Amino acid sequence: MVSYRKPQFFRVMKYAAEADRDVIDMVSGNPDWDPPDGLREGLRAYADEDSSAFQYPASHGLRALREEIAARRGVDVGRVVVTNGAGEANHLAMAEGLAEMSGSEVLLTDPVYPYYAGRANLLNADARFVPVDDQGRLDPADVRAAASDETALIVINSPNNPTGAVYGEDRKRALAEVAADHDALLVSDEVYDHFDYSGRFASALALDAENVVVTNAVSKSMAVTGFRVGYGVYPEWLVDAVRTRHMLTNVTGSRPAQHAVLRALETTRPDYYATTRRMLEDRIDAFTDALDAAGAEYTEPEGAFYVMARFDGFPGTYGNVERLIDEAGVAGMPGEAFGEARGDWFRFALVTPRATDAADRLAEFFA
Amino acid sequence: MVSYRKPQFFRVMKYAAEADRDVIDMVSGNPDWDPPDGLREGLRAYADEDSSAFQYPASHGLRALREEIAARRGVDVGRVVVTNGAGEANHLAMAEGLAEMSGSEVLLTDPVYPYYAGRANLLNADARFVPVDDQGRLDPADVRAAASDETALIVINSPNNPTGAVYGEDRKRALAEVAADHDALLVSDEVYDHFDYSGRFASALALDAENVVVTNAVSKSMAVTGFRVGYGVYPEWLVDAVRTRHMLTNVTGSRPAQHAVLRALETTRPDYYATTRRMLEDRIDAFTDALDAAGAEYTEPEGAFYVMARFDGFPGTYGNVERLIDEAGVAGMPGEAFGEARGDWFRFALVTPRATDAADRLAEFFA
Repeated sequence: MVSYRKPQFFRVMKYAAEADRDVIDMVSGNPDWDPPDGLREGLRAYADEDSSAFQYPASHGLRALREEIAARRGVDVGRVVVTNGAGEANHLAMAEGLAEMSGSEVLLTDPVYPYYAGRANLLNADARFVPVDDQGRLDPADVRAAASDETALIVINSPNNPTGAVYGEDRKRALAEVAADHDALLVSDEVYDHFDYSGRFASALALDAENVVVTNAVSKSMAVTGFRVGYGVYPEWLVDAVRTRHMLTNVTGSRPAQHAVLRALETTRPDYYATTRRMLEDRIDAFTDALDAAGAEYTEPEGAFYVMARFDGFPGTYGNVERLIDEAGVAGMPGEAFGEARGDWFRFALVTPRATDAADRLAEFFA
Repeated sequence: MVSYRKPQFFRVMKYAAEADRDVIDMVSGNPDWDPPDGLREGLRAYADEDSSAFQYPASHGLRALREEIAARRGVDVGRVVVTNGAGEANHLAMAEGLAEMSGSEVLLTDPVYPYYAGRANLLNADARFVPVDDQGRLDPADVRAAASDETALIVINSPNNPTGAVYGEDRKRALAEVAADHDALLVSDEVYDHFDYSGRFASALALDAENVVVTNAVSKSMAVTGFRVGYGVYPEWLVDAVRTRHMLTNVTGSRPAQHAVLRALETTRPDYYATTRRMLEDRIDAFTDALDAAGAEYTEPEGAFYVMARFDGFPGTYGNVERLIDEAGVAGMPGEAFGEARGDWFRFALVTPRATDAADRLAEFFA
């Protein structure tokens, strides 16, 4: 029996849903706000199309959608592969990176988004974890110290889940250089790029480097995690292998969602994203104020929509997550799900208008 | 550079689409008939749902959809994993079969549906091809002769693409026994189960065997190849590993399509499928009559919606496919795309009301 490191988000969500009391759900990365209007309009328009529009799109995605993405990202359309969410885009990057680069080791951060670690394990690669600093940032010097001839991949995520850290262009360039020096691929997952409160976010596409993959999706930015429309921008030399793996794994992505997202991309104005960003900043302020009142230590996020917090003498284990659900009515993710460096912490997703209530409940529980 | 055996359907479709003349497209398996009404209704209803319905479904599929499938197939709901089409269901079965069973060899038919061969290659397995008989059927005795301790998987597809052969329950039981005798998994792809003209089709689920996976999708039966809603019914002992691989590859499937398909399953009456089946039988009769007039040899399909045909002195190569597109105005798939046994043949998909015109064009070309 082979066993893989399985991300536990669904497990904690299920425990919270089955609790015998009111629970404020801060587990998942499921946005609680509305998608842009174009999304629903796109679905309705698609429902009325001729049935030929219900058949296979191009394996690597609807042409118009790829062109829209390529134009926005300033890349050649041939480098864009539309995937079943950023998850598949990352999977393809990691699988083909391991196939193409020398070495069989994957450098990941600690704390880590658990899907990266699970994929390394699924792909029979060795995962090596580089602890981030107190602000949740990865130091390129630490990555250089950990890298070796065995390093095939370096996977980063900024704005970061779970720490909220945002990496600027210099940091990404330094990481790409470490990767290049070791014949490794840098995979830059930028799915939270619309949620940068620091003003420092820069896409790794700006590096214009041969050994960099950028992945993204509309799951978070358009509040549709269930649509599974993501993409990767792969280097020219890698994109054919990625397309083939995508075809052999999934044949193609789901077309209703691609149509809806295309319409939404064409019609959504910048103020949609700005409004969401402001709402999340307000939530972060209110939640961290209440955490101050609860005497908790926490990381002020520079981006994304998660807050990591630590409570004295109450480490972030699965057992304690279940206690918080049952006794405080607040569901978060255990720090131990994200690695060792933040094993004492909890991650709270600010995907509920009741974030302040949640912090008040925590303050009462820990009083 | 790693290179995989890449299915060439999209390549031929592109050549046909770019031809400088009217071409009757018989390349793809894209149905040209309408989906059931419930499908469009389901999409419209979904577009009006609360935005919480736009977030991650359970990784292995919407609960109501899994229950609907399990009830129809008479299996425990825990064995059902909803996938991104039958393609992903097959990929998961092959990947986990290779991980769990002894050996690293995959037994496939010749001719073969090219995705199976491509996946064997992607998964670093050795593919061994067992030629089918003149009627396109696989003889279990031939499979037994080819099987060894190295055999990890036997992959069958019935009703068959490309030959149209339908395997009855006895044949499937014999194949499952060969698999069991060699600690191998039998993967039975039944995506054409609604298109059985022989009355002999039986699902491998009827075998109730521990080493059998059944895969399926609504892509063909509901004429929505682009929706990517399929499923696998996996043995109890394998389903956890399959779920984890699915989660790490795709996170989850696309929810708009799952909602639409659920509604369609709930509301579509048997006469929808019967009407389609009768239409296809009429097309097959007309097309094969015209092939008779053209002096071609062909296999009368027992199921699915493909006809394989051979023209004297004109083998089924990519070059000859392109000649037929340019000079006859008929696009089919080359036999060589499906293996060696039918390398001289062409495959024509009866997904156009102009199938008879196509046969007339072929008769004229070969006159």
